[in-house]
Amino acid sequence: MVSAIIVAAGKGTRMGPDVDKLFLPVAGRPLVAHTWRRFDAAPGVDEIILVVRDGMQGAFAEMAAEYGFKKPHRLVAGGKERQDSVWNGLQALAPAAEIVAIQDGARPCTAPAVIAATIAAARETGAAVAAQRVTDTIKESDGGALVARHIDRARLWAVQTPQTFRVPVIRRALQTVRERGLLVTDDTAACELIGQPVKLVESAAPNPKVTTLSDVPYIELLLQREAA
Amino acid sequence: MVSAIIVAAGKGTRMGPDVDKLFLPVAGRPLVAHTWRRFDAAPGVDEIILVVRDGMQGAFAEMAAEYGFKKPHRLVAGGKERQDSVWNGLQALAPAAEIVAIQDGARPCTAPAVIAATIAAARETGAAVAAQRVTDTIKESDGGALVARHIDRARLWAVQTPQTFRVPVIRRALQTVRERGLLVTDDTAACELIGQPVKLVESAAPNPKVTTLSDVPYIELLLQREAA
Repeated sequence: MVSAIIVAAGKGTRMGPDVDKLFLPVAGRPLVAHTWRRFDAAPGVDEIILVVRDGMQGAFAEMAAEYGFKKPHRLVAGGKERQDSVWNGLQALAPAAEIVAIQDGARPCTAPAVIAATIAAARETGAAVAAQRVTDTIKESDGGALVARHIDRARLWAVQTPQTFRVPVIRRALQTVRERGLLVTDDTAACELIGQPVKLVESAAPNPKVTTLSDVPYIELLLQREAA
Repeated sequence: MVSAIIVAAGKGTRMGPDVDKLFLPVAGRPLVAHTWRRFDAAPGVDEIILVVRDGMQGAFAEMAAEYGFKKPHRLVAGGKERQDSVWNGLQALAPAAEIVAIQDGARPCTAPAVIAATIAAARETGAAVAAQRVTDTIKESDGGALVARHIDRARLWAVQTPQTFRVPVIRRALQTVRERGLLVTDDTAACELIGQPVKLVESAAPNPKVTTLSDVPYIELLLQREAA
């Protein structure tokens, strides 16, 4: 059995206190409804756990009805940090869940083939992440405004979501993070802590995340082109 | 005196042999005409050197007439590699040129403020480059499909153009590259070879380059929004 956790508890503070980026209308629906639809439609996914902010449960319940999402889903309260939200999501998985795909709520364009490929790779390796090769020329600064050195981009990948795991692997990895009082920016970083190899799964199509309002028009364009 | 070199000699082989990306119609004009317009309109720039493929001189001359570009410009033949094209451009600068801004022909959205800021920084430091902070989570692979390590992105910048220099600095830097028979992917890498500090100038607005056809719709969106 495969579960998905959609992390939709972020406050999106980079957009200001009054904007909840997950509910921005994009290509005719709230942003997070596009993300949810991806997993509702993904053939290999059996259930969906949505980790949401307290007080937003009603909005998500309405969304399920309005867009006719079909798969079993459960709402779970978010935690203080992203890793706490993921942890809460893991507690809510069906007992039979073997694989879990963890997705940013604000990343609405993930291709079905990429979801499927991370699931297959996680079955095989234990952990897998959607990623794209870095195509920009990259420099490391000296900490200020001067270039300190050139970084060879040949081996660099920008990682995205889904980040997909055998359930015991991510449980053990995040347990380790919690015991050591660490803060990790993504779930594969937790795997690195326990020596769990992580497979890179190339996203051929763009798979961007909304971080600031200036990201919205591009994502709207991608969603509209797909719908056309 | 400030000169600009627009490197417009690329064959754009990633788009197939029959597509010249510089002439793709984007927001009503050939892509490279947008780039040219930026520098034609930039207050601090006095002349423009276009480095073009052999056989394309007529197309650029027509473009100047059609879009009414006003600043003095000269066409120069491209070389084998990008660095050879830049070298050819440097040979064509007016003798009075003190500062040169080198721009990718396929990067049409560069903001006037960024052009001005790289010119000011190059006057002060000798070399400056438009750049954006890396916002993605970055991993280094093991050379295959596994994550080898997490890269701290706090000091990483994706570099763009313009890359702007005091003229003697970039001449000496590229002379060194040529004498040593090296290949550099960007002009600031040549500066690193001679120990010339390079200042990072933050591009606040998106400043993308067309590399593949899939980049075009986003760039069209940016150009249309600006025109609206």
